[in-house]
Amino acid sequence: MSETGRDEPYPPVTEHLDDPEAAAEEGRRKMEWALQHMPILTELRAEFESERPLDGQTVGMAMHVEAKTANLVELLAVGGADVAITGCNPLSTHDDVSAALDANDSVTSYAVRGVDDDDYYAAIESVIGHEPTITVDDGMDMVAAIHEEYPELIDSILGGCEETTTGVHRLRAMDDDGALEYPVFAVNDTPMKRLFDNVHGTGEASLATIAMTTNLSWAGKDVVVAGYGYCGKGVAGKAAGQNANVIVCEVDPRKALEAHMEGYDVMPMAEAAEVGDVFLTTTGNRDVITEEHFEKMGDGVLLANAGHFDVEINLEQLDEMAADRYEARDGVEAYEMDDGRRLNVLAEGRLVNLAAPIALGHPAEVMDQSFGVQAVCVRELVENDAEYDAGVYDVPDELDREVAEIKLDAEGVGFDGLSEEQREYMGSWQHGT
Amino acid sequence: MSETGRDEPYPPVTEHLDDPEAAAEEGRRKMEWALQHMPILTELRAEFESERPLDGQTVGMAMHVEAKTANLVELLAVGGADVAITGCNPLSTHDDVSAALDANDSVTSYAVRGVDDDDYYAAIESVIGHEPTITVDDGMDMVAAIHEEYPELIDSILGGCEETTTGVHRLRAMDDDGALEYPVFAVNDTPMKRLFDNVHGTGEASLATIAMTTNLSWAGKDVVVAGYGYCGKGVAGKAAGQNANVIVCEVDPRKALEAHMEGYDVMPMAEAAEVGDVFLTTTGNRDVITEEHFEKMGDGVLLANAGHFDVEINLEQLDEMAADRYEARDGVEAYEMDDGRRLNVLAEGRLVNLAAPIALGHPAEVMDQSFGVQAVCVRELVENDAEYDAGVYDVPDELDREVAEIKLDAEGVGFDGLSEEQREYMGSWQHGT
Amino acid sequence: MSETGRDEPYPPVTEHLDDPEAAAEEGRRKMEWALQHMPILTELRAEFESERPLDGQTVGMAMHVEAKTANLVELLAVGGADVAITGCNPLSTHDDVSAALDANDSVTSYAVRGVDDDDYYAAIESVIGHEPTITVDDGMDMVAAIHEEYPELIDSILGGCEETTTGVHRLRAMDDDGALEYPVFAVNDTPMKRLFDNVHGTGEASLATIAMTTNLSWAGKDVVVAGYGYCGKGVAGKAAGQNANVIVCEVDPRKALEAHMEGYDVMPMAEAAEVGDVFLTTTGNRDVITEEHFEKMGDGVLLANAGHFDVEINLEQLDEMAADRYEARDGVEAYEMDDGRRLNVLAEGRLVNLAAPIALGHPAEVMDQSFGVQAVCVRELVENDAEYDAGVYDVPDELDREVAEIKLDAEGVGFDGLSEEQREYMGSWQHGT
Amino acid sequence: MSETGRDEPYPPVTEHLDDPEAAAEEGRRKMEWALQHMPILTELRAEFESERPLDGQTVGMAMHVEAKTANLVELLAVGGADVAITGCNPLSTHDDVSAALDANDSVTSYAVRGVDDDDYYAAIESVIGHEPTITVDDGMDMVAAIHEEYPELIDSILGGCEETTTGVHRLRAMDDDGALEYPVFAVNDTPMKRLFDNVHGTGEASLATIAMTTNLSWAGKDVVVAGYGYCGKGVAGKAAGQNANVIVCEVDPRKALEAHMEGYDVMPMAEAAEVGDVFLTTTGNRDVITEEHFEKMGDGVLLANAGHFDVEINLEQLDEMAADRYEARDGVEAYEMDDGRRLNVLAEGRLVNLAAPIALGHPAEVMDQSFGVQAVCVRELVENDAEYDAGVYDVPDELDREVAEIKLDAEGVGFDGLSEEQREYMGSWQHGT
Repeated sequence: MSETGRDEPYPPVTEHLDDPEAAAEEGRRKMEWALQHMPILTELRAEFESERPLDGQTVGMAMHVEAKTANLVELLAVGGADVAITGCNPLSTHDDVSAALDANDSVTSYAVRGVDDDDYYAAIESVIGHEPTITVDDGMDMVAAIHEEYPELIDSILGGCEETTTGVHRLRAMDDDGALEYPVFAVNDTPMKRLFDNVHGTGEASLATIAMTTNLSWAGKDVVVAGYGYCGKGVAGKAAGQNANVIVCEVDPRKALEAHMEGYDVMPMAEAAEVGDVFLTTTGNRDVITEEHFEKMGDGVLLANAGHFDVEINLEQLDEMAADRYEARDGVEAYEMDDGRRLNVLAEGRLVNLAAPIALGHPAEVMDQSFGVQAVCVRELVENDAEYDAGVYDVPDELDREVAEIKLDAEGVGFDGLSEEQREYMGSWQHGT
Repeated sequence: MSETGRDEPYPPVTEHLDDPEAAAEEGRRKMEWALQHMPILTELRAEFESERPLDGQTVGMAMHVEAKTANLVELLAVGGADVAITGCNPLSTHDDVSAALDANDSVTSYAVRGVDDDDYYAAIESVIGHEPTITVDDGMDMVAAIHEEYPELIDSILGGCEETTTGVHRLRAMDDDGALEYPVFAVNDTPMKRLFDNVHGTGEASLATIAMTTNLSWAGKDVVVAGYGYCGKGVAGKAAGQNANVIVCEVDPRKALEAHMEGYDVMPMAEAAEVGDVFLTTTGNRDVITEEHFEKMGDGVLLANAGHFDVEINLEQLDEMAADRYEARDGVEAYEMDDGRRLNVLAEGRLVNLAAPIALGHPAEVMDQSFGVQAVCVRELVENDAEYDAGVYDVPDELDREVAEIKLDAEGVGFDGLSEEQREYMGSWQHGT
Repeated sequence: MSETGRDEPYPPVTEHLDDPEAAAEEGRRKMEWALQHMPILTELRAEFESERPLDGQTVGMAMHVEAKTANLVELLAVGGADVAITGCNPLSTHDDVSAALDANDSVTSYAVRGVDDDDYYAAIESVIGHEPTITVDDGMDMVAAIHEEYPELIDSILGGCEETTTGVHRLRAMDDDGALEYPVFAVNDTPMKRLFDNVHGTGEASLATIAMTTNLSWAGKDVVVAGYGYCGKGVAGKAAGQNANVIVCEVDPRKALEAHMEGYDVMPMAEAAEVGDVFLTTTGNRDVITEEHFEKMGDGVLLANAGHFDVEINLEQLDEMAADRYEARDGVEAYEMDDGRRLNVLAEGRLVNLAAPIALGHPAEVMDQSFGVQAVCVRELVENDAEYDAGVYDVPDELDREVAEIKLDAEGVGFDGLSEEQREYMGSWQHGT
Repeated sequence: MSETGRDEPYPPVTEHLDDPEAAAEEGRRKMEWALQHMPILTELRAEFESERPLDGQTVGMAMHVEAKTANLVELLAVGGADVAITGCNPLSTHDDVSAALDANDSVTSYAVRGVDDDDYYAAIESVIGHEPTITVDDGMDMVAAIHEEYPELIDSILGGCEETTTGVHRLRAMDDDGALEYPVFAVNDTPMKRLFDNVHGTGEASLATIAMTTNLSWAGKDVVVAGYGYCGKGVAGKAAGQNANVIVCEVDPRKALEAHMEGYDVMPMAEAAEVGDVFLTTTGNRDVITEEHFEKMGDGVLLANAGHFDVEINLEQLDEMAADRYEARDGVEAYEMDDGRRLNVLAEGRLVNLAAPIALGHPAEVMDQSFGVQAVCVRELVENDAEYDAGVYDVPDELDREVAEIKLDAEGVGFDGLSEEQREYMGSWQHGT
């Protein structure tokens, strides 16, 4: 009997579907489309195919099982690994993609959309049942389950990779407590990921999702962006690029000043609430937009969140204030005040570019960069495992550079090398003013 | 018996639907969402309601029957008119909106989605059967039918309004032939419409539609924009605003120079074909992208059209060249060449922001401006009909100004007035260098 | 005795200088620098040299005699013309450039810096003494003098060209009165000139001049732009491109709306006065910034004018309000109010990119386009003089195209041609929706 | 006798000038203009005046003695310190500003323009003769002189501040060798300085200086930016904001990718050399543009450097290649090749916004931020000297925040605070996905 009290291990996705072959075919079509726009994974595929760096390894994964991730999975398989995967969120799995993965001889997929909590964790256990030598996580569930329930496997594990902010934070906390027993790369923290994922990925996907959910325009709108970190900068820049008048709200005076010097209007949310047409939160904090702000907003405003959790807009307060509430449009909930003002909340205040009905998540090119880093980190764990003790590691500089170079090559973009003299010059500080 | 050879006139939409009341409710929800973001129509509604400028008039319309247009229809009704409407394209009608309109006592809607040609023209005849005193067209079908089939009505017609480029061109041709027998406002031609509709409407809607159809990003892409008129400028500016590297192709050296001075790369399509990642045509001309260009394009390029007709990308040639052709994704047809390159055509080369499966057409705010001009032009025909003989008229300056002022008021945007001294100064040329 | 009552005609510049040869050498250095960045004139020079289209003609000119203009003069000479030139403003002449021109065998230059009114007009008479067959004006002084004082020359004059708004307006007034007796091209009015001269020339030159006059930065500044015509769009766009927060003031609601939709803040000057850091007028009107605005401005604001005349900022009122007034910096006059606020006026409210102490006028590339059009218009007057009766003419389309093509060629920028089928398609309107 | 072998100490500036009072008056005018646009120093002045945090301290400074720096000096004096100052570069001193400072009872200025090496170091010794308790350096000359020649003073020194990259690097080297004997704040390294100084200061000042040195335009130019660090981003962004087509050259593939994703063209210098119109180096490295690139450049290109040293463009090689060399314009040296191509080098390849004849250095607002940080760091050394042992220190976060807040207040820009709940939320990682 397993730890979850089941008699039988949770079975692969094919056993849950009526027509797994048809599903797999559809899933493969999605994967192919994505791969066509993932030059880094495509290039690594050629390399992994010829060099088989992962031969003999078993990779256990818990990630969003959709087309883009699936191409990472297949890359690892092409590199010689056996891969077992399940979802990291019951709602983000695409069953057809899961079926397509499972049809690959080197891959077993347990991901099924809409499973309950029991099955969710049972699927993780099924993955662990493959006795992975490497883990790849999006939220640290796999690492946690192994440490808590299957510590006997740790000795044979080379290490892991973690994709998200949240996962990395939990891992660092574990590491600080001395509880983390194998090395894990904080893929999330590399500038290569943050810059493109947050600035370009979140920026573009949020705006396009909002435009196509509402059939509204950005030109001339007062767009209030709460938070001026990487995501906030992305959203602000892309909105300005669609001719919106951007207003930034910040709590850090240095970032507020940065936004001001960029040419944006900067003001407290209490003032922005009176003038904004669209409000987008990107702070990672709670209660960024609350009762006092709702009171000041005009009729017809849009409220959306591009931060990780759905705590930035206080919907409980909004619900209490509202005289009525109805679905104004797919993905748009209107909260109607006593005075007739309608405040329109998109995607229930969840991450709008993932949670809106038409949402597609981050663009393929953006995930190509994140997943390219994942792939070379997995390879690094195999090739240089002696160098990594238990702990959380930043992605080594040369791996970041490698992925950047692959992308540039694929795009046909050249860059310069340093001569010996230049290297020497940069290293010395003798030359005077 | 009518001109179409039917015994019975074509009936209103309600007789075609199973549950017209439920449909009407859904249609109204869509209309309300749009109206919330159409401040010009909202403001004119208050004015029309109190002043009833259209009392006693009957307006016959042939337009896209969807939520935004429906708010124009109701505005005319609120202004005192009886309105009869049908679609101007069998595929653009939303039956629920049509039902919602028909539920209005002052409106009869004959628009039904997917009708065949016979029914399409029969519905126009049903509208004409209301003996309109004013016509509002999107493509000139109503004007044509009246002149050809019901000339006896012309005497009692005050005039008409035309929304599109194509309609205006046909009207001007008619006028040149001396065949146009009542005055028509060329609403399409006013800068108020072109600037916002083409630059902002086409620009934003095309890019958002492409992003959400493909799950791809703009950042770092080489985006080739064919044509640097209003639409081309909009597409180019908005793409640059999403961090694309924009390449402009033009046939007019002055426009080519304008684009070059704006900072864009400018080159012939034969060169652009080799470097572009995305191709967007906005020329209004045929065969802008042809065989010689397809041959040079890289694997995975996107081809889309933002011009009126589907003739800009020569799909016949592409089809002949292709070894295979398949649906790569909803709204994306992949043409696979012998050498394995995949050229991805969006929305069958039709106007992408209208024809893609997820397309929504122009944003509500943009249509608000066009329809605001329509409404004041209809009012002008009633109030000053003596001033207009048969012919095509530009929208009078003061009507454009009125609509602009309403929009600015609604947005809370102020502007300056001219003093007497300033007016005088601008009128004189005595003051020397 | 001449019309000005002199016994002797006004002599060429060389007779006014101590060391005309040294001056000519310095003048030539300036001309060469400018010519290096005037590809259109350079290209036309090769053509004019081989084809000598102006053989036998005499061109009389009254223009700003500085390096850029001098290259137009030499181009006409290279084309076969004898040229006589004087200044169009006593303060804009560079004596060294004037000397360099005069050293050319085919050119006589009467332009001397700082002459009084008598000498200014005497110099014009000296030019007319050459019996020009073509005139090129910047402000219409030459045309006026010929019509008023030397009507006997008109018969042998093929026509003229006029560079400025003011000149064109005066010419049109003359034409309306039936007083204009030879054809003149309104070079000023062609989009080729307006777009580049006003948008890019005025925009860039104004901002760079202000930055280098004040040692201040644009980033984060609230920059108020009065007027949203070509110049205003240029200034606004370039300021936003330096990370200023742009505020537009307008009197035309359609332009106000255009600026709003572009993403700028739009408000009346009375409001903008309270928040602006820098104020730039581009309206062409008087009293754009007056007492009521000065009262509201903050300490340290900058006030500058990029419009033609120095009437936009009411300095008389400002002077009356000021408790003190002093030169805060070269080119900056501080008006100190009773309450200690200092309002800083640049270049005495004159066109800042020409009148500031460090000002250089428009960039060479911009003048290259204007002067390229001038040159082909002069050639047109010779080659097709039969086609032009007395009157004001727009620059023919094909000449504009020719100049644009030369520029694009020089920059190595290619553009597309139209096929026969495409031409036909654009001409027809049979193809349906 | 002093260490420099003189009998007499080097005297203050007043003894070097003919009319020190007139000079002081002119110097004060310059200081007042700058101060008007330095809100941070202005605000700190009010605080320092009432709290006198530097009472009893003596500050020894070696910095560029011009109007902006002078306002920092006076701020320290107003705060209670005696200040002795000299220049940090013989060519950057403004004698009039130096005289104005020396006229302040609490300040002695030894800075004189154009002194020779002996006098330069003698002036530093004169400053040290005041027995400073705090040092403020721009290049570390003061710290070095004290450690080498006057170690006996170190005991009474609280600490120092260093403004430049170079100085900080030398200090860190000293610190690594264990040779640095008092604490020094690396003011240069704080993001507050880098972001504004490098991005906005270098970006805007370089472009405006080049435009006003050449009378050329940016629109439509191919502008090659070498290096995509803070300075390179600033230059690239500001050039694009003037409608240039920006080309980035980089040696780090990650930065190259960042530039590519921003939408810029990215290529090696060997390719960029063929297409660029203007070349701007910002790398901090040597030999960025060399013989192989000069060979490929077109006629009339501009070459300028915005990096610290004049080693980025290899002028020795250029000189060897050139057939001729002459001053094409003030601040522009033309190198003429055998084939007639002219390559124009601005400001001898030195930092263009400081070394061009018309250069003014960084804008006042930018220096206001750097100097604001300097001032609060000096205050920190007095108030919390017990906290700092010998070594190089980053500017404490709270000081950066303080300066940012002062600037925002002065600009009337508000920002939000964090509630207790929000602080707690940000500190915890219990909340799940």
